[in-house]
Amino acid sequence: MEIEMKMITGIKETKYVNAEELGKYIGGEVHVKASIYKIRRMKGFAFVLLRTSRMVVQSIYSAEEASFPLETLKEECCCNIRARVVLEERSRTGYELHLLDVEVLTEPEEISPIVINGKQMNTSMEKLLDYRPITLRNDKERAIFKIQNGITDGMRSFFAKEGFTEIHSPKIVFAGAEGGANIFKLDYFGKEAYLAQSPQFYKQMMVGVYERVFEIGPVFRAEKHDTSRHLNEYTGVDFEMGYIETFEEIMQMETEMLKAVMEWLRKHCAYELELLSATLPEIEEIPAIRFSEAKEWIARECNRPIRDYEDFEPEEEKLLSELVMKKFESEFVFVTHYPSKKRPFYAMDDSENPEDTLSFDLLFRGLEITTGGQRIHGYRQQMEKIIARGMDPDAFESYLMMHKHGIPPHGGMGMGLERLTSRLLMQDNVRYSTLFPRDVHRLTP
Amino acid sequence: MEIEMKMITGIKETKYVNAEELGKYIGGEVHVKASIYKIRRMKGFAFVLLRTSRMVVQSIYSAEEASFPLETLKEECCCNIRARVVLEERSRTGYELHLLDVEVLTEPEEISPIVINGKQMNTSMEKLLDYRPITLRNDKERAIFKIQNGITDGMRSFFAKEGFTEIHSPKIVFAGAEGGANIFKLDYFGKEAYLAQSPQFYKQMMVGVYERVFEIGPVFRAEKHDTSRHLNEYTGVDFEMGYIETFEEIMQMETEMLKAVMEWLRKHCAYELELLSATLPEIEEIPAIRFSEAKEWIARECNRPIRDYEDFEPEEEKLLSELVMKKFESEFVFVTHYPSKKRPFYAMDDSENPEDTLSFDLLFRGLEITTGGQRIHGYRQQMEKIIARGMDPDAFESYLMMHKHGIPPHGGMGMGLERLTSRLLMQDNVRYSTLFPRDVHRLTP
Repeated sequence: MEIEMKMITGIKETKYVNAEELGKYIGGEVHVKASIYKIRRMKGFAFVLLRTSRMVVQSIYSAEEASFPLETLKEECCCNIRARVVLEERSRTGYELHLLDVEVLTEPEEISPIVINGKQMNTSMEKLLDYRPITLRNDKERAIFKIQNGITDGMRSFFAKEGFTEIHSPKIVFAGAEGGANIFKLDYFGKEAYLAQSPQFYKQMMVGVYERVFEIGPVFRAEKHDTSRHLNEYTGVDFEMGYIETFEEIMQMETEMLKAVMEWLRKHCAYELELLSATLPEIEEIPAIRFSEAKEWIARECNRPIRDYEDFEPEEEKLLSELVMKKFESEFVFVTHYPSKKRPFYAMDDSENPEDTLSFDLLFRGLEITTGGQRIHGYRQQMEKIIARGMDPDAFESYLMMHKHGIPPHGGMGMGLERLTSRLLMQDNVRYSTLFPRDVHRLTP
Repeated sequence: MEIEMKMITGIKETKYVNAEELGKYIGGEVHVKASIYKIRRMKGFAFVLLRTSRMVVQSIYSAEEASFPLETLKEECCCNIRARVVLEERSRTGYELHLLDVEVLTEPEEISPIVINGKQMNTSMEKLLDYRPITLRNDKERAIFKIQNGITDGMRSFFAKEGFTEIHSPKIVFAGAEGGANIFKLDYFGKEAYLAQSPQFYKQMMVGVYERVFEIGPVFRAEKHDTSRHLNEYTGVDFEMGYIETFEEIMQMETEMLKAVMEWLRKHCAYELELLSATLPEIEEIPAIRFSEAKEWIARECNRPIRDYEDFEPEEEKLLSELVMKKFESEFVFVTHYPSKKRPFYAMDDSENPEDTLSFDLLFRGLEITTGGQRIHGYRQQMEKIIARGMDPDAFESYLMMHKHGIPPHGGMGMGLERLTSRLLMQDNVRYSTLFPRDVHRLTP
């Protein structure tokens, strides 16, 4: 008996052109898919801005050329369009479209409760986020996340070149990497489980497998901080590398990674960078200063008493960035050798001064975007530190397995993707660079 | 006053060579970093297998050449090594190393409780997973996840070419995409929240922003199934595309993606594919058969009564794959038009037969690896289906925002990365292709 089968052979040819290639069709006619972004009625014609997958393209409606009345078009209609591509030197793209035919595929049911097609989103951050599914359609809003995608593409390209393997570590875990109270609990078939605060344990284990690994994925922090730089879920960029001789190598790797990312953005996201008037930092070299010296330097230069000898106040991070910019013309600064008691139990202490760790933070334009350092690789050394901190070694049995069975000297770093993006774009709140932010007050959309 | 700053300039030159490039140094001497994978004592010399970041490299220890006694080396030591690279045609790599000097960086504290350097891991799956941090060091074990990394790299390269934007959607959500009881709950600052069962809602919203989006990230299913194909956390590969004319375009896109992945693996993972004796499927075209016809075909050909008219039994998926292989020589088969009542509320019903949906699954070597289909884009149509199902529209307010304000016709698919990997490697349990599996009984390591 005959079975009715259809053979799926792969992508078919289409009459629709890729909107990014419209410039190739100047003088000709094209079929293109687009949403109606904005209609501006003029005397005798109208400007119709078309939102395509990446660019907003200007088109002209005139009753002489078009086969349909202007009323057919509404903002946020999705359409198949036939148009002429006409040379127009005043346009940013070098061309404009003259509308000929349109097929309206879908129409909005209601008028937008918020203006999304202005030059900027003129609204509060709260509203911007409440209406995220539609406010992201604003061309500047979506440019932010195209740049964010450029950042991760640039990183991945760099990691591949440097021999890193990408891993996917579990997010439901038995114990937290950083410990403490800032951890989400969940019921896992009657057992207590947690959401991973970082892939720390797993990336270290994987150093014993591939030497160099990275992961770009969600991390969860149940912090109650409600500030412009905290999120309860964010995208962590983590790498970890084996066979290091000094913890400086980790900072060197991060420096190269940042250079590669800026290079990538220059090449692949010029459209969005221009749209957002973003200035990429020039990275030649990044100064590194010891934490204790940085504290003293800020105190002296800014005439400010030191209140906390173990951590920075946010204001101090800003002041340090300003001092470094003035003195070294660098928008980045590494701060090294944080006090041991402020760093996790797996941080390697400095043998020259065991009160300090071989660790660092990276500040960018006044904000901490990275924490990293060398980890303890010796089993006994790690056991001692766990016990000295009053922690229970049994809770870390599978973690300690790697120390017990040999792991090379290693270290790595974790970076907040949203923090990097938001400082790159000079936003005053990390939420602007978070697709759908989660904070103490926000769980939707 | 002078501030002590160190300038971090990026990656320094190193005397160590990349182990993958050892073949370039035949006849010369090299410095290389490696773990001692296996020592085989022979008469008058020893074979010492070195585990480098990707390859296991054979070296020869002889007292004449080496500056150190063999006892210096223990399995799972991490070392800096100086060696001569010698032409050796019988070796798979075309060369072998003659050990000259060694610097032992770290040593295991205990002998491994499980043999990890055999040709295979001769142990139960339970033990394999219990000791994951060390069993992954076995060269065949780690090859699995190098191939998995090749799969995602191949996908990303394909998605970039096809104009997809990568997104990072939140994993802590207010409502579940698929609904039902299979959802993990957590306490979110006193509110009830869930772990995302898929990025479904978000990828659909993002179609209104970028037209084509994808995400590769964790998804969570609180299913109590304890089978060889279920995981409670896995890596989902999701894409969603706008402006489709038929749901077949989604299958075409997936077919092209799979072709691109196989091509990528052939080019970039030949070493691992050979190590695992893996055979990649040849993909020219993939047959698509309607669900109801597939059920009848299996019943007829295999003389098997139909017990469930709305879903496949796992055995039927295997039988269908066998029938398709025999008739069409394809290791993949799309099954289309699943019954509406078995598909989620956002699935587009078939206008020709509203009992069915414009949806599909993809089976590969007897296992379902993908679910996809066209989604409802009309606001009223979506509202009607929500209400008809007795669901509360208010719970989907931000999801429905996109329908209300216009979204193009669209659809997409979700694939389990571990399932694809495990069928590619012909494993009988998806856990073998999961780095650190989570199931009803397993929360560690």
